Amino acid sequence: MRGCFITFEGIEGAGKTSNLAWAAELLRASQIEVLITREPGGTPCAEAIRDLLLVEREETIAPVTELLLIFAARAQHIHQVIEPALAAGKWVLCDRFTDATYAYQGGGRGLPEAQITTLEQLVQGTLRPDRTLLFDLPVEQGLLRAGRRGALDRFEREQADFFERIRQTYLQRQQAEPARFRLIEAGVGLDQVRERVQVLIHEAIAEHGAATAANKGSAL
Amino acid sequence: MRGCFITFEGIEGAGKTSNLAWAAELLRASQIEVLITREPGGTPCAEAIRDLLLVEREETIAPVTELLLIFAARAQHIHQVIEPALAAGKWVLCDRFTDATYAYQGGGRGLPEAQITTLEQLVQGTLRPDRTLLFDLPVEQGLLRAGRRGALDRFEREQADFFERIRQTYLQRQQAEPARFRLIEAGVGLDQVRERVQVLIHEAIAEHGAATAANKGSAL
Repeated sequence: MRGCFITFEGIEGAGKTSNLAWAAELLRASQIEVLITREPGGTPCAEAIRDLLLVEREETIAPVTELLLIFAARAQHIHQVIEPALAAGKWVLCDRFTDATYAYQGGGRGLPEAQITTLEQLVQGTLRPDRTLLFDLPVEQGLLRAGRRGALDRFEREQADFFERIRQTYLQRQQAEPARFRLIEAGVGLDQVRERVQVLIHEAIAEHGAATAANKGSAL
Repeated sequence: MRGCFITFEGIEGAGKTSNLAWAAELLRASQIEVLITREPGGTPCAEAIRDLLLVEREETIAPVTELLLIFAARAQHIHQVIEPALAAGKWVLCDRFTDATYAYQGGGRGLPEAQITTLEQLVQGTLRPDRTLLFDLPVEQGLLRAGRRGALDRFEREQADFFERIRQTYLQRQQAEPARFRLIEAGVGLDQVRERVQVLIHEAIAEHGAATAANKGSAL
């Protein structure tokens, strides 16, 4: 029985990383084997690519170079980590995936959506997340929270309108694919957010179990 | 007046790198400004990507990851080095370019040609070499020459039939695009090869001058 692939998306400071840990806890309490990973990264080679992306350098990185590096890391991540885990029946919780590329490189940096779609098809084939939790909150609130955590990296230093375009792209994608996305209002208190995540994880467990039972039925 | 973009291709040990230096000497003797570069690499970021590709690691690099890294380095190389130099009227001599990707990743590793074509269009737009010098020689002879130069890298350790597929892919491309390619029989003595390179470089100078004169004429 194939595992379920859940991605966690949202702008800086939306709380996706700590809620991912919470979701893993809930799944493990339900005796489900979980693999936690993140993008860009997830394998030594992909993490090396991530380092290339995050380092400050004098040379300007062309947007298309950034896009290709992100998908190179993703290809490696899928081949080495995500696909083997799903095939072994594990649930994969991934901190950011291709929706982040549409939001950051597409909405944020203005790269043509068609380029991202081309690379998505080339790298992923038919692989898409089974469920995507989108943590949404006003940009100012998110940046404030992210700033509290320490030094800002290259992406975080960008201006607030950049993040506003990212937020809007996420919301557009959520509206275009309501079956896959679940929106989580992340500007409220942590307890409320955790409660909502709990509901959504239990929903995913129920749906995945039902889908599996249906598949078993048809296989009999 | 835009410069001329000449690429040097061939299997290991074909002598393209030393003949590239010879071609640069000939062009400079004709008062032409020359930029020498290589792939993958050519900028600090692209060289860092090259290092990622060449390092030995326990993790298997998926072929599609390798392909995306090669095109990420190429995108950076084009934006930072090749296009600015050509626009400034310099001639660019490049040790390997996209024909090498078709030969090594396509012919050699068996990646679908369509994936390479997709990335070529995404990264290069309309940019193609004005002229490609293909240094051809039997695989065994090439490997023997390459082996003499010191430690073999990951690519050079691969088996001879891998290189045979690469050689054949290069030859197919040369036959498909006779206007762009010039074939150089590289298994003969160095003096003969240098003579042939000299003839071809002088041909390129004459053609580029004629094309420029024609453009000037039509602009009047």
